[in-house]
Amino acid sequence: MSQGNLYILSAPSGAGKSSLISALLAQDQQKKMMLSISHTTRQPRLGETDGIHYYFVSVSEFESLIEQGIFLEYAKVFGGNYYGTSLPAIEKNLSQGIDVFLDIDWQGARQIRQKVQSVKSIFILPPSLQELERRLIGRGQDSEEVIVQRMSKAMDEISHYDEYDYVIVNDNFEQALTDLKSILRAEKLRLGYQKQENQGLIHELLAK
Amino acid sequence: MSQGNLYILSAPSGAGKSSLISALLAQDQQKKMMLSISHTTRQPRLGETDGIHYYFVSVSEFESLIEQGIFLEYAKVFGGNYYGTSLPAIEKNLSQGIDVFLDIDWQGARQIRQKVQSVKSIFILPPSLQELERRLIGRGQDSEEVIVQRMSKAMDEISHYDEYDYVIVNDNFEQALTDLKSILRAEKLRLGYQKQENQGLIHELLAK
Repeated sequence: MSQGNLYILSAPSGAGKSSLISALLAQDQQKKMMLSISHTTRQPRLGETDGIHYYFVSVSEFESLIEQGIFLEYAKVFGGNYYGTSLPAIEKNLSQGIDVFLDIDWQGARQIRQKVQSVKSIFILPPSLQELERRLIGRGQDSEEVIVQRMSKAMDEISHYDEYDYVIVNDNFEQALTDLKSILRAEKLRLGYQKQENQGLIHELLAK
Repeated sequence: MSQGNLYILSAPSGAGKSSLISALLAQDQQKKMMLSISHTTRQPRLGETDGIHYYFVSVSEFESLIEQGIFLEYAKVFGGNYYGTSLPAIEKNLSQGIDVFLDIDWQGARQIRQKVQSVKSIFILPPSLQELERRLIGRGQDSEEVIVQRMSKAMDEISHYDEYDYVIVNDNFEQALTDLKSILRAEKLRLGYQKQENQGLIHELLAK
């Protein structure tokens, strides 16, 4: 069995990353892909379930896990909440041939790249500044202060797009989804992966 | 306008490479892909046209082109015929944003890699030894000696599969074609390419 691939997916809020990941996973009938579940100390939002959307833990629990060294990356974001990615669950899934996606920001991405050389990273861009602003403001559930903060964070995130292996512009959703799938498939066609995946065939052909 | 990508496609005879390339080009409605036309000193076969399938030239013409340094790679194959890839035509097409495919063997591939760092190479494998033998023998137009030679050349070619960036196993034709397209699309989603392709958008987003 070939190892799964580890992917980082980053984007400014409003680029449509979550919708893309949801659509990708919904179409994954063989269950060979999954989104890594992060730990966080923030409060669950309406509809969020512990162990599905996040592992919701207290600050003291989170800090204890940091000391145990289980995080591949973690960060304290503005607002004071911790977010982190635990290594053991990822490794177990990769070893079962499952591709694992990390939905993290550029700072988390940097930490992961230092620790996992084989990680592939994908950045998703909105189709225009106007559309990004429309999406960030359009949710209608946040105060102006939160919107300004979110816009500032989005611009900060975008400024790091060139640290990524791949860039997808999410103009047309279906095209962006196809693009994402093309990357995942192409990475499986790389020599290293195919060598593992087709050991039997290659042995048969070379033995002749 | 972004530069086109240069691809090497290699395979043992009988792996289905020519059919894959034909199907790919037939579906390329925007004419953004083309097969590089090689020079050769061998005689045209039935249905082959000069300037479409090959540039058919004499041995003295070919050797004069070698002296002029226009070949990116060339080789004298068994049987004594020359085959070569001329650089000027490729560069012109790449600069117009057209992806160019080089249908060459592992020896030509090595020469190209030394001269063009950005080239991506794809190797196509048959699904089994039995199927390869069936395809090589099944053409029914060649002598046993030619078949033995072709089989020997196929095995030699296969032994170099691990010098390539990507490997496609041509078991199911449609899947192999989809795989090929995925590689081409994913390469266009790489940071370097997207940076060029979306200069305007990136400038707009980063200027904020």
